[in-house]
Amino acid sequence: MASTEHNRRELANGIRALSMDAVQRANSGHPGAPMGMADIAEVLWRDFLRHNPQQPDWIDRDRFVLSNGHGSMLLYSLLHLSGYDLSVDDLKNFRQLHSRTPGHPEYGYTSGVETTTGPLGQGLTNAVGMALAEKMLAGKFNRPGHDVIDHYTYVFAGDGCLMEGVSHEACSLAGTLGLGKLITFYDNNSISIDGDVSGWYTEDVNKRFEAYGWQVIGPIDGHDPAAIKAAIEQARADTSRPSLINCRTVIGWGSPKMAGTSAVHGAPLGDDEIAATREELGWQYGPFEIPAEHYQAWDARQSGERLVQEWQQAFAAYREAYPELAAELERRMRGELPANWQQVVDEALDKFGKAKKDATRKSSQAVLDHIGPQLPELLGGSADLTGSNNTWWSGCQQVSADSPDGNYIFYGVREFAMTAIMNGVALHGGWIPYGGTFLIFSDYARNAVRMAALMKQRTILVYTHDSIGLGEDGPTHQPIEQLNSLRMIPNLEVWRPCDAQETAGAWAAAIERRSGPTAMALSRQGMEPQARSADQVKAIARGGYVLSDASSAPELVLLATGSEVELAQAAAEQLKAAGRSVRVVSMPCVERFQAQDSAYRSEVLPAGVPRLSIEAGSTGLWQGLVGDNGAAMGIDGFGESAPGPQLYEYFGLTVDNVVATAQRLLA
Amino acid sequence: MASTEHNRRELANGIRALSMDAVQRANSGHPGAPMGMADIAEVLWRDFLRHNPQQPDWIDRDRFVLSNGHGSMLLYSLLHLSGYDLSVDDLKNFRQLHSRTPGHPEYGYTSGVETTTGPLGQGLTNAVGMALAEKMLAGKFNRPGHDVIDHYTYVFAGDGCLMEGVSHEACSLAGTLGLGKLITFYDNNSISIDGDVSGWYTEDVNKRFEAYGWQVIGPIDGHDPAAIKAAIEQARADTSRPSLINCRTVIGWGSPKMAGTSAVHGAPLGDDEIAATREELGWQYGPFEIPAEHYQAWDARQSGERLVQEWQQAFAAYREAYPELAAELERRMRGELPANWQQVVDEALDKFGKAKKDATRKSSQAVLDHIGPQLPELLGGSADLTGSNNTWWSGCQQVSADSPDGNYIFYGVREFAMTAIMNGVALHGGWIPYGGTFLIFSDYARNAVRMAALMKQRTILVYTHDSIGLGEDGPTHQPIEQLNSLRMIPNLEVWRPCDAQETAGAWAAAIERRSGPTAMALSRQGMEPQARSADQVKAIARGGYVLSDASSAPELVLLATGSEVELAQAAAEQLKAAGRSVRVVSMPCVERFQAQDSAYRSEVLPAGVPRLSIEAGSTGLWQGLVGDNGAAMGIDGFGESAPGPQLYEYFGLTVDNVVATAQRLLA
Repeated sequence: MASTEHNRRELANGIRALSMDAVQRANSGHPGAPMGMADIAEVLWRDFLRHNPQQPDWIDRDRFVLSNGHGSMLLYSLLHLSGYDLSVDDLKNFRQLHSRTPGHPEYGYTSGVETTTGPLGQGLTNAVGMALAEKMLAGKFNRPGHDVIDHYTYVFAGDGCLMEGVSHEACSLAGTLGLGKLITFYDNNSISIDGDVSGWYTEDVNKRFEAYGWQVIGPIDGHDPAAIKAAIEQARADTSRPSLINCRTVIGWGSPKMAGTSAVHGAPLGDDEIAATREELGWQYGPFEIPAEHYQAWDARQSGERLVQEWQQAFAAYREAYPELAAELERRMRGELPANWQQVVDEALDKFGKAKKDATRKSSQAVLDHIGPQLPELLGGSADLTGSNNTWWSGCQQVSADSPDGNYIFYGVREFAMTAIMNGVALHGGWIPYGGTFLIFSDYARNAVRMAALMKQRTILVYTHDSIGLGEDGPTHQPIEQLNSLRMIPNLEVWRPCDAQETAGAWAAAIERRSGPTAMALSRQGMEPQARSADQVKAIARGGYVLSDASSAPELVLLATGSEVELAQAAAEQLKAAGRSVRVVSMPCVERFQAQDSAYRSEVLPAGVPRLSIEAGSTGLWQGLVGDNGAAMGIDGFGESAPGPQLYEYFGLTVDNVVATAQRLLA
Repeated sequence: MASTEHNRRELANGIRALSMDAVQRANSGHPGAPMGMADIAEVLWRDFLRHNPQQPDWIDRDRFVLSNGHGSMLLYSLLHLSGYDLSVDDLKNFRQLHSRTPGHPEYGYTSGVETTTGPLGQGLTNAVGMALAEKMLAGKFNRPGHDVIDHYTYVFAGDGCLMEGVSHEACSLAGTLGLGKLITFYDNNSISIDGDVSGWYTEDVNKRFEAYGWQVIGPIDGHDPAAIKAAIEQARADTSRPSLINCRTVIGWGSPKMAGTSAVHGAPLGDDEIAATREELGWQYGPFEIPAEHYQAWDARQSGERLVQEWQQAFAAYREAYPELAAELERRMRGELPANWQQVVDEALDKFGKAKKDATRKSSQAVLDHIGPQLPELLGGSADLTGSNNTWWSGCQQVSADSPDGNYIFYGVREFAMTAIMNGVALHGGWIPYGGTFLIFSDYARNAVRMAALMKQRTILVYTHDSIGLGEDGPTHQPIEQLNSLRMIPNLEVWRPCDAQETAGAWAAAIERRSGPTAMALSRQGMEPQARSADQVKAIARGGYVLSDASSAPELVLLATGSEVELAQAAAEQLKAAGRSVRVVSMPCVERFQAQDSAYRSEVLPAGVPRLSIEAGSTGLWQGLVGDNGAAMGIDGFGESAPGPQLYEYFGLTVDNVVATAQRLLA
């Protein structure tokens, strides 16, 4: 079937039909966006997208991101029609438990879904990360005549995505970094959930993106395949700037009564309107029925195989010419660590066991200096706090539009975009991204941290200035509830090391963790190094361990993290001097500790022995850990502006107070 | 002293000297912005700002917001010089514990500080809220010839503020709403913490703000008083659009070695450079020394008294002509509730005690329909989820650029800006703002919720779709850790009512609370109404109370919130049928309950009686509440996409499971 205009519309109508039928069957979902963007999707996927449905993990595939993730049936229809492992039965199971077609596209559930979307603005930001990863990998690995990494990243985004602040952060930075192979389709349908956007979204989007340094194309008629095709060609031709294609569309296109209204955004059309839409579209097929010639026209398997074969040939030539680079690229894309990694870690643990008193943010930088040269996939960065976060190590090189062969991103004051870009970089592969900001500003990026955890992505959040210990900047900058509330994000590991050696252990754990993100809470102020036996050093990886013990069975356990460990140690000394048997447990990673078997846990925290926890933050979660006979020392109100040591005094986190509380528990 | 150009510079230099001296003395702080923006501040404060240092709460004063709050010494210098209650000794105490000059401007600590700033972008967004509050109040209360509300809102903002996503959300909306009396000074100094912004911030800011529909002025020379003055005049003349004055400045202006570099951003200059700067500026005075004629030139007390007197005369005429409006405006600006408020609440509690099964989001709307007509200061809104959040009640009227006399803001998909704008509206006074989004997207706005709590502002966050009960939208939309992590924000009250009557109680509590914000977690799905005695109805306000009891002393307490209360009740029925004495405690607001005296708490939760908590979210905080002999039922992983009832089954939140767990505890 040739792609005449007429046939194109019919093919697009297949998406419309599948989408409205699946939403109707689930009695829940969003038909409006799929029906509105079907024509754009048909042109992009059939004429441009380089992918192979039978090899969805081909490393040089084009990435496609549906940032308006509520329109998931658009993506599921495309994957099904193109020949991905997604059957009609899967479509019929839309939004059912454990189906491959959940309500929003979920990374890991469905082959061909590149990222989990739904929280608006973040898919677009992930895409910026993917385009950035591509550009940097190309800069690093391509050689003259060997463009082994060379793909586009395409994004669909709606008004909602562009209203969200994170779209500003991400797109402004994308312009600065000249991400010329990022192509965004703006679904300009003038409708959001509350109705016609003229009451709340009147900005000149083209002008805004021009201000960001993007190539802006359109507005075009998003239902005219020729215009769409021409726009994509124009977008692809300029590889120095990201492109925005402003597509005027009608939400729910094809529905006689509901097209162009918010009624079609997020609810089934109903049987009558579906019948009327079939009529209007001239769609003569039953629910979930696609004629064979349509399947044939959509099928991307053969062309995909061809693309991959061509690429494999090209890669073979590359391997021939640059065997080491080829092996290294493959290793990095597999996400595997270098062969000497364990040795690097062992040396680091050894070396930093001899470090002197320092802030853990500085220890973290020293650890990076140690491991960085062995780990070229490390991609550093900070949201404009490089010198404060100590994220820049001696091997860092700035990535810019004209010099993509670097390993450090100056993200600017953009915590949310940084975090969601890191997610996109990790999803793309080839890099292990870490990024810094103050712990308090994890608040700005919180949902992107959650998305990393949900998608099981290896990103590393370097959060410095982790308590009132930061001092004079005051309550707006002093984290209180942040530590505990990060700990509550499922599948996020939060480390709060107490000295250089634990910091090295935290970095090792974060880098070795392939199933999710890690947050590191690091101090601004100096911290005393603790002495450890070889067994204790090993136990760091368990998240919690006995750091110092009494000679006899403990009567009390002091449980502390980070900067409060030295406080616990000093108090234990005093209590021991007073004849008390006191154990100190350092717990740099509560989640890790809780994942240990119960034998280990009760070895460290023996039943019946009262516990006193000390952490300069909320006590909430500690209450459960210390139990009825224990106590939790911390801070449950806001901080104050004053020098750090004074604040510790003011908030009662002193050796004297720990001793007094301990004595109360021992009485 | 006449304001010649020469003298203007000298007066501005007073700010520079105080700022560098105070930072030096504190050995901590940010001299760069105050020294860079001193000239702008001098012109604005001496020639335009309408305020009275001796009456900082005059309701029609111009608002001034330092969104780049790290430059706090700029604001403290201005307040001190203008005659506010801020002495040289206060300046010398910069950044010391309990001083009036904390590291960042803190609302409530220092008279003349209109909002707490530091977390970038939010001050600007608060200012949008203040300008909006002004415009709406003017629309509501002014009458021909009686412009009793008529002031400007001025903001200083740096590159950091404009990089942050929230600035996009807020400024785009400000353009749409035509906030013509909002005037923003962009401190375009090309420097952020990481250095020259050309590596990460290259957007065309003017074009961006033109895209938002703002009047854009400049770039002007931010060190040329005549240019500044002309720009402000131009900005003030256009009252239909917000204005951005793009001011080219040199950060740390006056410092011979450090001006124009990031070195001057956030650290003391050092004694030598301070001496050199004094030389360069021709500033012959000692640390903290300001010549008398400077004080005289800065003093705004007399002119301020005059302004207030004029306004009082105008207001007297207004009162004469419109006595009821005048009284109502005064009441609203005092933040007092109407005289009949208690009656309104009593009626609501009574009425909603008879409601039938419904989702609490719908009960919430019904409550608004009941109280709304009695509470004209209620300002509603939603981040593009009006129909889902049920935030629109029958008396709602949309606020737009041309019709400011409304009570409902369509915020668009801008959760963070909505929340920070609500903070600005509350700070301005005259309104009680509430705004809706899905509970999961509290993540996007989290730091603004925290700022409301820190500033003790009465804002009401309406968070619907509060659990896996929302169903098919899946894990990206299903809150898990959000309830508990909101509960950890100090001074935030989180309500999760179980039926219409508790929803009425929650609204009453939120509106009556003058010391901080309230979040409401409301269900998408229907919930059975619970029967209550008069005493139980009263006890709702205590945050936790016995909802049903055994006839004999309880052997077990089931502790539940929101949608899980009916689960607890059903399980209790079964357990009672099996001969067990089981109590059910409904705990719609944990913070309130914990604030009760210990007698009440142990009456409700008797010591020694095991407790089983049930909440469809993280169990973390509940572990502490149920204690060693209890158990917490909940969900600590991510949700799934499926119909809500199936998910309750899948995650084990069923009557059978509650009964089984209870029996284990009873064994």
